[in-house]
Amino acid sequence: MVQVPIINIHGVLLVTIQDELLDDSVSELQQHIGEQVVEQHARGVLIDISVLDVVDSFLARTLHDIAATTSLLAAQTVVVGMRPAVAITLVELGLVLPGLRTALSVEDGLELLGRGNGTVRTGPR
Amino acid sequence: MVQVPIINIHGVLLVTIQDELLDDSVSELQQHIGEQVVEQHARGVLIDISVLDVVDSFLARTLHDIAATTSLLAAQTVVVGMRPAVAITLVELGLVLPGLRTALSVEDGLELLGRGNGTVRTGPR
Repeated sequence: MVQVPIINIHGVLLVTIQDELLDDSVSELQQHIGEQVVEQHARGVLIDISVLDVVDSFLARTLHDIAATTSLLAAQTVVVGMRPAVAITLVELGLVLPGLRTALSVEDGLELLGRGNGTVRTGPR
Repeated sequence: MVQVPIINIHGVLLVTIQDELLDDSVSELQQHIGEQVVEQHARGVLIDISVLDVVDSFLARTLHDIAATTSLLAAQTVVVGMRPAVAITLVELGLVLPGLRTALSVEDGLELLGRGNGTVRTGPR
């Protein structure tokens, strides 16, 4: 059973991956995030991969799929904290993950998702 | 004959899909929505699929086509209430439906279409 904590910060789910995940856990995580987006009415998801030395093609594809899934559920996903070595490896593998948004830190990710202050600003009040 | 109710909420047509539709009914629905958009001068369409456990590739493509059709008729379509499992399946099938807007609930969908008060607000004051 995967135990990836999901924390809600003003409508943005922060998912911190703390260990290299087994393939089963990755699929479970995808499902769990989808359910939490709906349940907690999240407008965004930040996936922190800063502890990972390696992102293999399976995990890379799953990150992409999670982003696509949350996008269908009206929440944007941003992957944060990718290490330079991981980025280089992904490019070498040809996994440039079109459509996946990234940010250097959780803070930048929250900024990208719109302040994290609990309001969705789509128009004037 | 398909009997999908279409309700007009201040210029937004709310289409609630209550059962899994047969392929014929889906095509009929597409036509019916197009006609109603013009007849009722609607500025938006919300398609509620919250009761659906499964969205197959045919229905997914039709949702996309309905959105494209209403867009040509100057009305935006938002698909609301998609279940997480449906989103995951669509992504697995590679049906990420580019250009299709989604929202978690009818309320969010109305918000996305501009409050449901008859004005479309796209920018800050």
